[in-house]
Amino acid sequence: MANELDGFHFEQNHGKARVRVARVWRADGGGGHSMVEWSVNITLFSDCINAYVRDDNSDIVATDTMKNTVYVKAKECSQQLSAEEFAILLAKHFTAFYPQVTSAIVKIVEKPWERINLNGQPHEHGFKLGNEKHTTEAVVKKSGGLKLTSGIAGLSVLKTTQSGFEGFVRDQYTALPETRERMLATEVTAIWRYSYDSISKVPQKPLYFNERYLDVKNVVLSTFFGPPKGGVYSASVQSTLFQIEKAVLIRFPDISSVQLKMPNIHFLPVNISTKDNTIVKFNDDVFLPTDEPHGSIEATLSRFWARM
Amino acid sequence: MANELDGFHFEQNHGKARVRVARVWRADGGGGHSMVEWSVNITLFSDCINAYVRDDNSDIVATDTMKNTVYVKAKECSQQLSAEEFAILLAKHFTAFYPQVTSAIVKIVEKPWERINLNGQPHEHGFKLGNEKHTTEAVVKKSGGLKLTSGIAGLSVLKTTQSGFEGFVRDQYTALPETRERMLATEVTAIWRYSYDSISKVPQKPLYFNERYLDVKNVVLSTFFGPPKGGVYSASVQSTLFQIEKAVLIRFPDISSVQLKMPNIHFLPVNISTKDNTIVKFNDDVFLPTDEPHGSIEATLSRFWARM
Amino acid sequence: MANELDGFHFEQNHGKARVRVARVWRADGGGGHSMVEWSVNITLFSDCINAYVRDDNSDIVATDTMKNTVYVKAKECSQQLSAEEFAILLAKHFTAFYPQVTSAIVKIVEKPWERINLNGQPHEHGFKLGNEKHTTEAVVKKSGGLKLTSGIAGLSVLKTTQSGFEGFVRDQYTALPETRERMLATEVTAIWRYSYDSISKVPQKPLYFNERYLDVKNVVLSTFFGPPKGGVYSASVQSTLFQIEKAVLIRFPDISSVQLKMPNIHFLPVNISTKDNTIVKFNDDVFLPTDEPHGSIEATLSRFWARM
Amino acid sequence: MANELDGFHFEQNHGKARVRVARVWRADGGGGHSMVEWSVNITLFSDCINAYVRDDNSDIVATDTMKNTVYVKAKECSQQLSAEEFAILLAKHFTAFYPQVTSAIVKIVEKPWERINLNGQPHEHGFKLGNEKHTTEAVVKKSGGLKLTSGIAGLSVLKTTQSGFEGFVRDQYTALPETRERMLATEVTAIWRYSYDSISKVPQKPLYFNERYLDVKNVVLSTFFGPPKGGVYSASVQSTLFQIEKAVLIRFPDISSVQLKMPNIHFLPVNISTKDNTIVKFNDDVFLPTDEPHGSIEATLSRFWARM
Repeated sequence: MANELDGFHFEQNHGKARVRVARVWRADGGGGHSMVEWSVNITLFSDCINAYVRDDNSDIVATDTMKNTVYVKAKECSQQLSAEEFAILLAKHFTAFYPQVTSAIVKIVEKPWERINLNGQPHEHGFKLGNEKHTTEAVVKKSGGLKLTSGIAGLSVLKTTQSGFEGFVRDQYTALPETRERMLATEVTAIWRYSYDSISKVPQKPLYFNERYLDVKNVVLSTFFGPPKGGVYSASVQSTLFQIEKAVLIRFPDISSVQLKMPNIHFLPVNISTKDNTIVKFNDDVFLPTDEPHGSIEATLSRFWARM
Repeated sequence: MANELDGFHFEQNHGKARVRVARVWRADGGGGHSMVEWSVNITLFSDCINAYVRDDNSDIVATDTMKNTVYVKAKECSQQLSAEEFAILLAKHFTAFYPQVTSAIVKIVEKPWERINLNGQPHEHGFKLGNEKHTTEAVVKKSGGLKLTSGIAGLSVLKTTQSGFEGFVRDQYTALPETRERMLATEVTAIWRYSYDSISKVPQKPLYFNERYLDVKNVVLSTFFGPPKGGVYSASVQSTLFQIEKAVLIRFPDISSVQLKMPNIHFLPVNISTKDNTIVKFNDDVFLPTDEPHGSIEATLSRFWARM
Repeated sequence: MANELDGFHFEQNHGKARVRVARVWRADGGGGHSMVEWSVNITLFSDCINAYVRDDNSDIVATDTMKNTVYVKAKECSQQLSAEEFAILLAKHFTAFYPQVTSAIVKIVEKPWERINLNGQPHEHGFKLGNEKHTTEAVVKKSGGLKLTSGIAGLSVLKTTQSGFEGFVRDQYTALPETRERMLATEVTAIWRYSYDSISKVPQKPLYFNERYLDVKNVVLSTFFGPPKGGVYSASVQSTLFQIEKAVLIRFPDISSVQLKMPNIHFLPVNISTKDNTIVKFNDDVFLPTDEPHGSIEATLSRFWARM
Repeated sequence: MANELDGFHFEQNHGKARVRVARVWRADGGGGHSMVEWSVNITLFSDCINAYVRDDNSDIVATDTMKNTVYVKAKECSQQLSAEEFAILLAKHFTAFYPQVTSAIVKIVEKPWERINLNGQPHEHGFKLGNEKHTTEAVVKKSGGLKLTSGIAGLSVLKTTQSGFEGFVRDQYTALPETRERMLATEVTAIWRYSYDSISKVPQKPLYFNERYLDVKNVVLSTFFGPPKGGVYSASVQSTLFQIEKAVLIRFPDISSVQLKMPNIHFLPVNISTKDNTIVKFNDDVFLPTDEPHGSIEATLSRFWARM
């Protein structure tokens, strides 16, 4: 919310961050339990300027109340639902229930609990933690206007060949040799925006967004790696990133925009020598993996009418 | 950089993140050593679309080259300088040196090494790590246009009294009691924007921005805590946050905008009981400090002509 | 190494920690690439007291030299090998090569890169990061004496039912209700010791210890969860932990001892109410997952002749 | 606790980790508030084997009960006390109150809240977070036998000169040049054992151990850095470490043993060049600070009759 105050411009929001909730659904008549664990962040844009300037809290929705609401709403969800649906449902509640709340942002990170398989059979009530995370953010206005994004966080991938980097600018600050053979490693962060611009237009199919999440992840992986036999050559992180984004937009008509962050996580060739002695000479075999520094490559591809 | 491609809209940038550098200055004729340790993030907006769509890297400044440049420029700095000055100097280099680079963002986090005092005397070459961090971000355009912000990260403060929260909205989701006596703890993140909108206007006084950083921190602390004797009552995090922002803008004419994030880090009253037995009854004495969830209170106050 | 000095007793060691190395093997004639990423910790026990007390470094193996040795030895491994084999090989080198080194400890944590499957087919050179980690520690004496342990770190598992906790001590500090229905979640850390007490006795079968690692993990998982249909009731973390340890020792004759740490990671039932209002009433459905505090349950089961 | 079971040897313990508690003391008649924030870890060695092997929890002190006890005991402490005193008090409670508990270990990490000074005046109720942490561990037996240690964690220090490393072993794996001029940086972890071997012998002076903590820290710092003017030359981390340990034992008669971990945190000289071009040439000015790998130097010095 923005206000003008004595010649100043003031913008504020408040919310509750890192509200953790787990929800278990126990199927009647067999089929096993389902469960999710979410970390929920709520931000409200509301007309509560008096709290800031007049010590008057009468328009303030306490952040403790927001936290309670997460649990109330989780309880009300008698059927399993996606993080996207829960984010929309929560944000809609805050904008509908409180007159002073004009819009709400709800972000969720889902902990990657996966049903475990034992001897090839899915376990009725057993779960094991996986790695990369499903994320979502719903921005809901009192009018019902919606901006919905989903994402993947922490998808770490590497390929041991079929990557190079050549023909870049060389000047007095350049030491990097050109190569057609290097490791390529990155930790993909993907965020895509859906085209549904109102909460009334969101697909009602149960777990629709979970399916989409898996489908997008598959497109990311298959484009990054190429065919199981032979792979595909990457001329740069930039090139691979763009191919992924194009593949996502071509494949999924209800995704209007996709952003990728693909840091270049360097596996440095190991060469060690002294004036008199070569201790280790690199032969595409021994690498030093590093966390810092890393290249940072980011880009967003959008359908023309729908910039992120 | 934004482009249009076959009916898509494309925006991209690339850079090098977490470039760590330490610089030591050894004063001639006594006075001791100075040193800084910086983690530098560089982002370039440049015309290099061919790398993404045509596997042609000829416009790409390699991120390895950016890293080297950090060290070259650090070496060239024969006098101690602030992180702000170094960020501007680096960003200016990238926009001036490369025709295809239209703008550059350089962010720096300074590691809080502090000269150590032994027996009340400053040590000539000894340093110890402190806590909260000085940050900066310079956005420089090829034209010389500048957006310069500085910040404090991780300033953790608490007061054991003189804080309350009353009169907020009560509804069926509300459980929080009203109080005039609670702990108030937060980890302040502050970012303020300077009014210098061109690199030619930046003050030339050595270490000017380091002084400002300390001055702003003092205003934050003295407004948060109030007088050493008695303190000052806080009616809400919101109220205290606003008072700090107003104090910063009133005190520093070259700061045009200030943003504060002051999460409400809860110290919960400890009450433990069973149906039959009171195990611990709270009396403003024993608290459970928590990391999650936390309230999130954020606001930006700007001079009217200069929104952040 | 222990020494006596002027009436003091002195023990010291030195080494290099967090040496990161990745090794790629490129199969001739097809079959794809293999790779590992290891973080190696080396500790040497050596006779180098003069460095401490006389500023004489002539017996000191520089930690930089240890780091180089990791890369030299990784390069020499022309066939893929397990972390256990590499740890032994390195430790053996240090004790054999340097007269003053009486024993060496090498610890390795393997980053869980897993070959990716695309459309059900293993990729020739593509890898994705998994979750829990394979660890090992080899203690090698100059004589060839060996203490070899392997482990799993960070294996997070939960089951949504088939867990209870009843009949424990009740006193004036007790508030926890008894239950036969709760979530059970833990992050298993397992360490097991092999019975091979000399480097000459270690099995020569390639990747033997990788197989064992997977086998032990399977025993942990199948004992923790019970059958896919129905599971198995856990009367306490203690009971489940003991069953896992017994199963490991019964199944693997060359494992002489097994230690488990199974923190009880609490998923708290959510009940929220005020004097006048029940906001959320728990019905085995909504939980608050927590990181702290957690129960800590640790135990070691050993064959009688072979305590860990 | 150790048991024999069907030809196996079994050792177990259980406890509660990361119990967070803050305690505020409000001085009557002025003088301001005092406060501490502790993270408490409790481990009990108790005779409760039936829980493991017979699903009988009747000897189990629930970890939830341990947590409650922390709060009860914190409440009972009507005067400010040191972490050491609180650890002893808690451990003594568990061994005295429960017949089946033969010994208890209580570890505490104190969060470094420091009273803030504004305009040179200490604030009555305002605190700011510092950096390095005060730690303690009390091992108490039912008999009253005590092993008490205190420590410093995370004390990061560096000096920009007066450090070298020469005369070490050179062989075919050695690349490190000798030097008499380098940065020396480390993160000191210190643990010292007090000679009080029974809870009845512990000094009763209030806050005695807080004073000792500050005194030991001063000895560490003044030995590491040397005089404010000129400093002191360090021939190796080993040499500096030993001097600190000797200084501690000489200065504090009730400390019987001291352990130091002083990882060598490398600030690498920056040299960048190609075949044709020197990009950066090091001149004791520009460094690359690193986290990994690091040298690991550890040693313990004990009075002869009292090994740690």
